[in-house]
Amino acid sequence: MSDPSCKVCSGTWPDSDHFIADLGLSMAYLHDDQFFPGWTVVVFKRHATELFDLAPTERIQLMEEVSRLAKVLFETFEAKKMNYAQLGNQTPHIHWHLIPRLPSDPAPLEPVWSVPHHRAVLSHDQVQATIARIKTPLG
Amino acid sequence: MSDPSCKVCSGTWPDSDHFIADLGLSMAYLHDDQFFPGWTVVVFKRHATELFDLAPTERIQLMEEVSRLAKVLFETFEAKKMNYAQLGNQTPHIHWHLIPRLPSDPAPLEPVWSVPHHRAVLSHDQVQATIARIKTPLG
Repeated sequence: MSDPSCKVCSGTWPDSDHFIADLGLSMAYLHDDQFFPGWTVVVFKRHATELFDLAPTERIQLMEEVSRLAKVLFETFEAKKMNYAQLGNQTPHIHWHLIPRLPSDPAPLEPVWSVPHHRAVLSHDQVQATIARIKTPLG
Repeated sequence: MSDPSCKVCSGTWPDSDHFIADLGLSMAYLHDDQFFPGWTVVVFKRHATELFDLAPTERIQLMEEVSRLAKVLFETFEAKKMNYAQLGNQTPHIHWHLIPRLPSDPAPLEPVWSVPHHRAVLSHDQVQATIARIKTPLG
């Protein structure tokens, strides 16, 4: 199932250069803005917009995929805490933001969306190096 | 299991007057700030800080509880979209923020944490009335 007006379904977002791994029902991509290093997006493959619209088996598998990747990000980036968010205000197609909050975090007590900053856009080589760091322990 | 230094485990937060329902492995409370009407917090009962630290059976049940309550909030508040977040930067004890985003939302494309606002603290009667609206369909 797909929605032609959806930028996920139409392949406009996320950038295919940021692809990390196919997790099963979802795909992981490195977020465009790496101001918070390791920020990863997990995109559900078929078009759906709310957790409660999924079949229980899908919801369970999706959350297991999210949890497995969160553990890899937590360990790879030596995070103090993981942040998990499924918002969808701009892009309703289900996608999870997984954000490792590092010891060097400039605002460790705040949600990332409260922290004004310039986007940190990495070079192609930096993106690939970051993806490799995540991909290896993901197996 | 509990952690005496944790404000959830010590009973300091959330405010017991805001209690909505016992969902099984978690408890639901109306959030203190109702600037975004219906904002609810789902608190895991035992002390744990990351989804991947839970047993798979616990994680699955917690997410089913979150999903069930999200559906009730979506329908009760006639939301356009639900927002789901588990951050824990200030209070690591696992708790989910479930935020219905209404047609009247002042900043529908933004995460709630990007929207400067004065806290909307309801009166005791308003809190109880809002809880009743959520509790009835929850059954």
